Amino acid sequence: MSNEISTLRAKCPLVQAITNYVTVNDVANAILAIGGSPVMADYEKEVEDFVRLADALLINVGTLTDGEILGMHKAGVKANELGVPVVFDPVGAGAGPGRNKTVMELLKDVHFAAIKGNLSEMAFIAGRDVVTRGVDSSMDEKAADPVEIARICSEKYNTVVAITGKVDTVCYKGRVARIYSGSPMMGRITGTGCMLGGVISAFVGALEDPFVATASALGSMGAAGKKAEERAKDLGTGSFRTFLIDALSMMDDGKLSKYGLVEYEG
Amino acid sequence: MSNEISTLRAKCPLVQAITNYVTVNDVANAILAIGGSPVMADYEKEVEDFVRLADALLINVGTLTDGEILGMHKAGVKANELGVPVVFDPVGAGAGPGRNKTVMELLKDVHFAAIKGNLSEMAFIAGRDVVTRGVDSSMDEKAADPVEIARICSEKYNTVVAITGKVDTVCYKGRVARIYSGSPMMGRITGTGCMLGGVISAFVGALEDPFVATASALGSMGAAGKKAEERAKDLGTGSFRTFLIDALSMMDDGKLSKYGLVEYEG
Amino acid sequence: MSNEISTLRAKCPLVQAITNYVTVNDVANAILAIGGSPVMADYEKEVEDFVRLADALLINVGTLTDGEILGMHKAGVKANELGVPVVFDPVGAGAGPGRNKTVMELLKDVHFAAIKGNLSEMAFIAGRDVVTRGVDSSMDEKAADPVEIARICSEKYNTVVAITGKVDTVCYKGRVARIYSGSPMMGRITGTGCMLGGVISAFVGALEDPFVATASALGSMGAAGKKAEERAKDLGTGSFRTFLIDALSMMDDGKLSKYGLVEYEG
Repeated sequence: MSNEISTLRAKCPLVQAITNYVTVNDVANAILAIGGSPVMADYEKEVEDFVRLADALLINVGTLTDGEILGMHKAGVKANELGVPVVFDPVGAGAGPGRNKTVMELLKDVHFAAIKGNLSEMAFIAGRDVVTRGVDSSMDEKAADPVEIARICSEKYNTVVAITGKVDTVCYKGRVARIYSGSPMMGRITGTGCMLGGVISAFVGALEDPFVATASALGSMGAAGKKAEERAKDLGTGSFRTFLIDALSMMDDGKLSKYGLVEYEG
Repeated sequence: MSNEISTLRAKCPLVQAITNYVTVNDVANAILAIGGSPVMADYEKEVEDFVRLADALLINVGTLTDGEILGMHKAGVKANELGVPVVFDPVGAGAGPGRNKTVMELLKDVHFAAIKGNLSEMAFIAGRDVVTRGVDSSMDEKAADPVEIARICSEKYNTVVAITGKVDTVCYKGRVARIYSGSPMMGRITGTGCMLGGVISAFVGALEDPFVATASALGSMGAAGKKAEERAKDLGTGSFRTFLIDALSMMDDGKLSKYGLVEYEG
Repeated sequence: MSNEISTLRAKCPLVQAITNYVTVNDVANAILAIGGSPVMADYEKEVEDFVRLADALLINVGTLTDGEILGMHKAGVKANELGVPVVFDPVGAGAGPGRNKTVMELLKDVHFAAIKGNLSEMAFIAGRDVVTRGVDSSMDEKAADPVEIARICSEKYNTVVAITGKVDTVCYKGRVARIYSGSPMMGRITGTGCMLGGVISAFVGALEDPFVATASALGSMGAAGKKAEERAKDLGTGSFRTFLIDALSMMDDGKLSKYGLVEYEG
């Protein structure tokens, strides 16, 4: 049996998140539920102070201001300097020139330990010609092969890449993991993608290997989604949201092994 | 039996919302629960990109910054240019000179397909001398007739007008609808008014007729409020909030017809 | 039996909150649940308009922008001028020079009726050499005596001081209250500290005596935390969050007296 959850909980990594105001509360609660300690400081005049305390930094571009973008760059550069791993959630990459510019400039200035996105966001980062539909993927696995897209992004930016979808994909340096857990109800509430970014950051801040950390995060979210679906399917999506945090908070090594459905290939 | 809910769900309209940071998560979840797809982009340098993808735009002035106000004007003007319907939620109109100026300038620059507010907010827009108590109405139906106020606003701004209250009122070009559903518990949590703005936007983005769309949104929220009250009344307002989203996500044409209590007059 | 809850509910104080975007929704719902009316206006061009309507003002520095800091100063100064009590939640005080500067400048410009924080935040304000771990206390009762820290802060700033911890402490002008209720689950979700700031503000806006108001707020949160823990302990932290708001909304004078475990000393 793996010990990723117990390792994370023993360390209780401090995760600094610079994220969007839509799902920031969900991200903080997801980080706490899985066993980390969140701090959501994003003010450009203090981000570097908090990076000094952090075990991982999350950058999520879901909503933006001039000040937040400046804070993302300052925090990312400082984290690189101090060796604090940075996780990137390029929400809406591919949706239009404004968002695309922000994403590309962050990729230029900051080295990321892990990047996660849906298929059309990551296809945009891989250099494909794609228009993301707002914050939802405009592509499915028939339109592009997630393993191929993930490999291209991973090599281009020397980073772990996770692509979410019906089956999730994680790639890094020739290693591939596929995650078969999860629930269609996860797409019927806002924030599950952002929460995943927070959970990846907590694992990356606690475990040595960022590939295993990222796959474990996807397995944990997937196992939690399945459990929440069982409890909520006759009730509705409000209950699903509550039960998803419940399930993350009750996660343990045994549940991740049994219900996470993480398959390591290659 | 009407088919507003099934029509909305079949179309899954993309709703762009520029809204306040207090209830933005509730608004996104309400849009998803009723069957739309939300994107909450409000950054002035990218709002127009997202308007191009959107089926409807929501502008809610609950909290503000210079940048957000600029984004509201840019997005609203672009939406008018492209024929994307815009819904306005003038939260706190009448509360003081700062908020009032923002509301009046948006009404000058942007044509709205629908405006919703409580009685004192809409009385302010109708030109009455009124002081709104923060974000709560300072008037009841004894202080002013909602049908009269709604008619004045509707003619002045050539828009569907919805006024929330014990009984809700919708007016447009001589047509009137009154909605008798809802629950007093809706006033005991934050965000039900803002969620309604999101739900109106989803309907307006999916249905041909903005008057029927707005009345259907009020009926859906009212039916959901009643259902949530039944489940939560012995538990409390935290459960009510969860169950309200549950009920929106479980809404269908039959429930809206039976529990929405929408009466079309005139 | 005390009558703090019924007094608060009869008055329904309007609480203006300038707070962080992480937990703003929780703060608004907590204020509503205990019986107040929240308005979260923080835009520097309108904060003073809303202070004129308010019974209490809350300033919480959890996340910041230049505009919000300006709004905090303008609102705080106006509230002092009008005699509206101001409550301060110096989130993350001690975490780094940026945050510390913001906290100290607010303490210089604004007189607070009550200040609440965890032990390391308040130790920083008392002038101790301390580094707060993000937004969590880096000290426990072995590292410093909360009653002593609270007394120093209270005298220095002529204000009621509340220090949260396993046992909470409230001090003012030689009076001390200790609160023995609460639950360890309160630290496993985000926002319970911020919600407490909102609840203190509602009590301070409704009761004559800010010392009793603050102690009653801590007793109410503690009683609600205990009740929520009973319902949620086998479910998880998502349910706990919902049940905490439930319990606040169901609070009454009898429950506060019985389960709040407020002991007035000296």
